[in-house]
Amino acid sequence: MKLYSYWRSSAAYRVRIALNMKRVVYEQVPIHLVKKEQSSPEYLALNPSGLVPALVTDDGQVLTQSIAICEWLEETVSGPSILPEKEYDRVRARTIAQIIACDIHPLNNTRVQAYLRTEMKQDDAQVQAWIHTWIASGLAAAEALIVDGKRYAVGDRPSVADICIVPQLYNARRFDVDLTPYPKLCAIDAEAAKLQPFIDAQPERQPDAPPT
Amino acid sequence: MKLYSYWRSSAAYRVRIALNMKRVVYEQVPIHLVKKEQSSPEYLALNPSGLVPALVTDDGQVLTQSIAICEWLEETVSGPSILPEKEYDRVRARTIAQIIACDIHPLNNTRVQAYLRTEMKQDDAQVQAWIHTWIASGLAAAEALIVDGKRYAVGDRPSVADICIVPQLYNARRFDVDLTPYPKLCAIDAEAAKLQPFIDAQPERQPDAPPT
Repeated sequence: MKLYSYWRSSAAYRVRIALNMKRVVYEQVPIHLVKKEQSSPEYLALNPSGLVPALVTDDGQVLTQSIAICEWLEETVSGPSILPEKEYDRVRARTIAQIIACDIHPLNNTRVQAYLRTEMKQDDAQVQAWIHTWIASGLAAAEALIVDGKRYAVGDRPSVADICIVPQLYNARRFDVDLTPYPKLCAIDAEAAKLQPFIDAQPERQPDAPPT
Repeated sequence: MKLYSYWRSSAAYRVRIALNMKRVVYEQVPIHLVKKEQSSPEYLALNPSGLVPALVTDDGQVLTQSIAICEWLEETVSGPSILPEKEYDRVRARTIAQIIACDIHPLNNTRVQAYLRTEMKQDDAQVQAWIHTWIASGLAAAEALIVDGKRYAVGDRPSVADICIVPQLYNARRFDVDLTPYPKLCAIDAEAAKLQPFIDAQPERQPDAPPT
């Protein structure tokens, strides 16, 4: 498979983790968001949303939207499950994933930040305050759904919830968000950082990451 | 079941359609978003996100996030399926749903509009332009995924894609978005408007809708 990705995109990071968990071998095609490569006619022909990631399957189908891709991987690829087994655990994992994928990330992505700066004339401090607002409210809602005494967000196996939590915490640190109000999410993040599928998906380890 | 809802919320509208399609009998508890009832301590105890909808199941579980609720209904309630059968159709339906639920709706909801007006001092025209930007780019991406010659978004049965499209078009009309660039989405909307589960979920037919 071929993954159109950007090293620092949260949504691409999620799909990299999911592909790694499912032990799918994939090639990466970097799409440089800051250079606006996602708005090139070639990329828009592939993904009309002009967002990363896009996954091209072995039989040439183009899949977009990180959570839809995770569900598709779960339904079509054997290997470790990325959803819990029990019904209420499954809905809880999906709820945490959606809190992050709907209520935090789309408000803070590159195109929205650009709009706030360019069209709405907001300065760095104002954009930073905006980002902090949505990260804080979303992480608080996610933290409230984490049950004590489990290794990951829902039970002792990582799921789509953790696939979303880890990139969102990476993103929160990048914007200097204080994470002390979210000890459960931080504990999950530390636990996931021991797992090879999560390690291999880290932004700094991607081929398009700038040299440190 | 008990649905905490607001007549004009897109996310609550989605869940009303899904519950109707699954023939679930439910009671509605109105949460008045403009009066900020979603931020009351009672409601936050139920849904820490402070958003509608929240669904309380027969055995007292509180479910939030509209798409997670749709997936849970599909897995636990018999009755007409709200996902297509074939794998690529399923991922396409979920992708269209996520384009709307992630890339359009969260950018335009009540709390975001309030932030733009209050914290960022944007006037009505500027907020309107913001809303139009995200609706237009998201609907264009969704339109591009609709295959010709089918009755609904993915095939001849309504799915989670249509469950998201119909409320989003209602919302777009509310904000005077020109829908002529999206003929396929409009045709789906007109088709769905003939189905009782969609009709019964319409905002104006809800118990908390103001008298016309």
